[in-house]
Amino acid sequence: ARLNGLIAATYTPMNTDGDLELAQVAPLVERLLDDGVQGLYVCGSTGEGMSLSTAERKATTEAFITANAGRVPLIVQVGHNSLADARDLAQHAAQAGADIVSATCPSYFKANDIPTLVECIADIAAAAPNTPFYYYHIPGMTGSTIDIVRLLEAGIEQVPNLVGLKYTDTKLFEFQACQAVADGKLDIVFGCDEMLLGALATGATAAIGSTYNVIAPIYLRIIEAFVKNDLTAAREEQMRSIEFIRLMNTYPFHSGIKEMLRLQGVPMGRCRLPQQQLTSEQCSTLKQDLQDLGLL
Amino acid sequence: ARLNGLIAATYTPMNTDGDLELAQVAPLVERLLDDGVQGLYVCGSTGEGMSLSTAERKATTEAFITANAGRVPLIVQVGHNSLADARDLAQHAAQAGADIVSATCPSYFKANDIPTLVECIADIAAAAPNTPFYYYHIPGMTGSTIDIVRLLEAGIEQVPNLVGLKYTDTKLFEFQACQAVADGKLDIVFGCDEMLLGALATGATAAIGSTYNVIAPIYLRIIEAFVKNDLTAAREEQMRSIEFIRLMNTYPFHSGIKEMLRLQGVPMGRCRLPQQQLTSEQCSTLKQDLQDLGLL
Amino acid sequence: ARLNGLIAATYTPMNTDGDLELAQVAPLVERLLDDGVQGLYVCGSTGEGMSLSTAERKATTEAFITANAGRVPLIVQVGHNSLADARDLAQHAAQAGADIVSATCPSYFKANDIPTLVECIADIAAAAPNTPFYYYHIPGMTGSTIDIVRLLEAGIEQVPNLVGLKYTDTKLFEFQACQAVADGKLDIVFGCDEMLLGALATGATAAIGSTYNVIAPIYLRIIEAFVKNDLTAAREEQMRSIEFIRLMNTYPFHSGIKEMLRLQGVPMGRCRLPQQQLTSEQCSTLKQDLQDLGLL
Amino acid sequence: ARLNGLIAATYTPMNTDGDLELAQVAPLVERLLDDGVQGLYVCGSTGEGMSLSTAERKATTEAFITANAGRVPLIVQVGHNSLADARDLAQHAAQAGADIVSATCPSYFKANDIPTLVECIADIAAAAPNTPFYYYHIPGMTGSTIDIVRLLEAGIEQVPNLVGLKYTDTKLFEFQACQAVADGKLDIVFGCDEMLLGALATGATAAIGSTYNVIAPIYLRIIEAFVKNDLTAAREEQMRSIEFIRLMNTYPFHSGIKEMLRLQGVPMGRCRLPQQQLTSEQCSTLKQDLQDLGLL
Repeated sequence: ARLNGLIAATYTPMNTDGDLELAQVAPLVERLLDDGVQGLYVCGSTGEGMSLSTAERKATTEAFITANAGRVPLIVQVGHNSLADARDLAQHAAQAGADIVSATCPSYFKANDIPTLVECIADIAAAAPNTPFYYYHIPGMTGSTIDIVRLLEAGIEQVPNLVGLKYTDTKLFEFQACQAVADGKLDIVFGCDEMLLGALATGATAAIGSTYNVIAPIYLRIIEAFVKNDLTAAREEQMRSIEFIRLMNTYPFHSGIKEMLRLQGVPMGRCRLPQQQLTSEQCSTLKQDLQDLGLL
Repeated sequence: ARLNGLIAATYTPMNTDGDLELAQVAPLVERLLDDGVQGLYVCGSTGEGMSLSTAERKATTEAFITANAGRVPLIVQVGHNSLADARDLAQHAAQAGADIVSATCPSYFKANDIPTLVECIADIAAAAPNTPFYYYHIPGMTGSTIDIVRLLEAGIEQVPNLVGLKYTDTKLFEFQACQAVADGKLDIVFGCDEMLLGALATGATAAIGSTYNVIAPIYLRIIEAFVKNDLTAAREEQMRSIEFIRLMNTYPFHSGIKEMLRLQGVPMGRCRLPQQQLTSEQCSTLKQDLQDLGLL
Repeated sequence: ARLNGLIAATYTPMNTDGDLELAQVAPLVERLLDDGVQGLYVCGSTGEGMSLSTAERKATTEAFITANAGRVPLIVQVGHNSLADARDLAQHAAQAGADIVSATCPSYFKANDIPTLVECIADIAAAAPNTPFYYYHIPGMTGSTIDIVRLLEAGIEQVPNLVGLKYTDTKLFEFQACQAVADGKLDIVFGCDEMLLGALATGATAAIGSTYNVIAPIYLRIIEAFVKNDLTAAREEQMRSIEFIRLMNTYPFHSGIKEMLRLQGVPMGRCRLPQQQLTSEQCSTLKQDLQDLGLL
Repeated sequence: ARLNGLIAATYTPMNTDGDLELAQVAPLVERLLDDGVQGLYVCGSTGEGMSLSTAERKATTEAFITANAGRVPLIVQVGHNSLADARDLAQHAAQAGADIVSATCPSYFKANDIPTLVECIADIAAAAPNTPFYYYHIPGMTGSTIDIVRLLEAGIEQVPNLVGLKYTDTKLFEFQACQAVADGKLDIVFGCDEMLLGALATGATAAIGSTYNVIAPIYLRIIEAFVKNDLTAAREEQMRSIEFIRLMNTYPFHSGIKEMLRLQGVPMGRCRLPQQQLTSEQCSTLKQDLQDLGLL
């Protein structure tokens, strides 16, 4: 059982004070499934998992599990600087009905030797021993300098339920080498939306990302065109995604996408600190910019 | 009321499984006060604050407050990727009797613009509004790229109880510029043990650090010699600290100091993951190395 | 006129003392053209351009131009910390018959604002005003933090002969966005051999790299399979390149490839300092490792 | 024979086109010696050594040697990505009468293992075997990640004329540990003007820097006050230097100091690319800013 297609790294609905607004989870999930999303990655970077308390992460997890009702695979991200919390979250996720547990390494203290990082992964994964575990590699956020290929080679020996990887970096050669570990035994999922086309060529069959919340149809057309070997169309659609992401990077990124979801009829509130909010002027220009790109 | 002298960034006692062993807090505090330490900085980087659950941080805080019994200023570090937890910890620390609350910025998501970082600080500090707040600047761990001088200039305007800074970096010119902010209104405490002498010349009157747990007498002699203008002696003692720290950096640093405390009669157990532990061979060589330096 | 296919970033032949051995240029060029290489990129990073004196760079350039005798496009890399030298080299390359001039930015002093970097490019390109100029973007070596898309947008307005880019980074979305600048007016050449397949999908039609000196047939099979839409074969061949590069990264990389060329019958001598040389033990294990991969 | 006091890292006079204007060397040297400068460091980072051609570096070196006429120690910086050029420059400097040769490591290719970096140093130093050699450690520019203490320990064994270090970093503990290598056999010179006071406390007896070109009297007062143990005065003067440097960092730094020298009656022209120039508006505001600080 491998992940397949587009998996939204879900936003966590909040109100304008930054408090959880879990009533909005169901409309978000419906919207995503309607858009063709085939999985949900909950409380990841996009979902501000690290900015939530452990209790809030559990509540958010439960709301998504309830809203999803088993329709698509649901992954819960439980990484935490405190491995005690990570274990607690992993156990909770499994009991609450998550299909997969996933976690980053701690990032305040860096685990930059392989045996220690494998120990960390084993520690978290053992808290939900019957649930598949996907390690979440996102060196741009965690500062990890590990050789991810060698990490997987070591991890697969020592962590019985390590079955996959969320690979959020741009090194396709590393992404491909991860796919080859242990004769392809692991499910390596791609995490960089703006280069999905290159990843498909390199063997990706599933992708987890933020922008699948708002422009999933563009990516579905990339996949469809790629499958039909219509690379011209695939590149055009990928270029639309790139232009969109370059635009969003001129705003506080996640706050901007939450605002876009609001404009699309699925209010998600603000992002929590330390992420910047949009000013009211930015809300206006963003709306115009999205209309100019034909995305509203 | 400013901090003064050596302030130990306290280790958090654990057993060999990495569980809290709070009965060991009292012996550690007695040892530190006997050694001439004039303050306690609890649940900082040294104390593995980020590796503890929020409940564990509260329990550790209470144990140190009880053991200290008001004898020296006690600072509680409450920084957390989740500002909700940071606020909770700040409020708890104040109610439990901490003299000062301190916090790093969140570090998974980086707050690298000044207004947003000031908002983060204000958010935490407001949870303990009647307790002095010291921002904890440690860019080597958090990845913060902020201009700390400008941060303080902005922060002092907007955070009523921002009264100090733990400056853990090596740029003495920045350390000195921080002292000059608002005509010296803030208490700027130095955090790099191995260059204390240079900091004293530059105006430091208090210092927070890990190695004050184990070799405080060396630093007291640095201060004493500096005050007497005996720079030759001061440099010799500083050089002893440098040699010690260069040695400890050949081991997993904090695990090594915990082992040294054990050898000195104050067992502290192991460090938690993601910090590496000493192998039994490393325990042996460390003991020998410390004897060779005359520190055991 | 755009570049096409595989372009070898040529090694510069030296003797075992590290002196130029330009008699070996001709055999190298024959070998590369025999292997299907369709262009030569001279005095780049691979060719140790930065480690040669300006006179040596000119002599090397002339030797390659002579050996090539106009058979394939020949690009000369002229980047230098001293723009005076870069201009001198650009002028020389044009007069000596190079088809294209290319240059990195200076890297001791960083040019990290766009107008200044455009000035640098204009300064170099103007020294060979009738020769096409390709900017060489290799942030891993130069430390440049520039937005390359915006650089090209500005550069195309101000540098009449700026017609292309050697893009040596892993961000395919940036590579694709560069292709879209000015409606595709620029020739964007890919520079990361180990992810050629992803780049092909994203629109690459030419690639410049080190490993095209030694395993060009593998890459030609990638291209051939890609064109036939046989992605399984293309991925298998790409994986062979990845394994090869992962192997070479366990040695001093360029010294290892020079040794491999020697084993293949085209002695290239050693690399100059500051690059490490192979020990004689490494020479032995490399030979074995290459035989194990079926590459000797 | 050790260096002593303030050593100006001299600016290289240019005209407004960025061509050498060596007639201005003599007035600069007179100005510096009048100001109490006790040494000249030629063609370093401040002197844009890396932005000059090898012929220009030789001409600049000769002009400074002539103007100095043996009055103070004169050091020539010969670091170059091409070690062939570095050797050529070292040999020339010695023959032209330099007292000391100094060099950075190459920085396009990084030499981040100690044996290789020692080889590089040996290679350069051997080109002027009877002239004292000072290695120039400036990791902020070169990206070197070497342990400088271990480098010196290895270098002193293998490079007969390695007698000193220009230490341009902020880690006073490393600076002090360098002083202790081989029982203090090496002359370790400090290179961070804005923390001179801390370095004096830590044992510095000589310092090389940019701002000694323009505000040497402030630093002489720091030294004088330090010697008299008047730390209040020393800190006040250091704070003036810090304010000045923080100001200059709001401009293109070296271009700003060249403009300041012009305003002080010693025109130095512009900086070369890739350094930014001042706009005419910046020239105006800089003049006002310097007057406000009482430095004009």
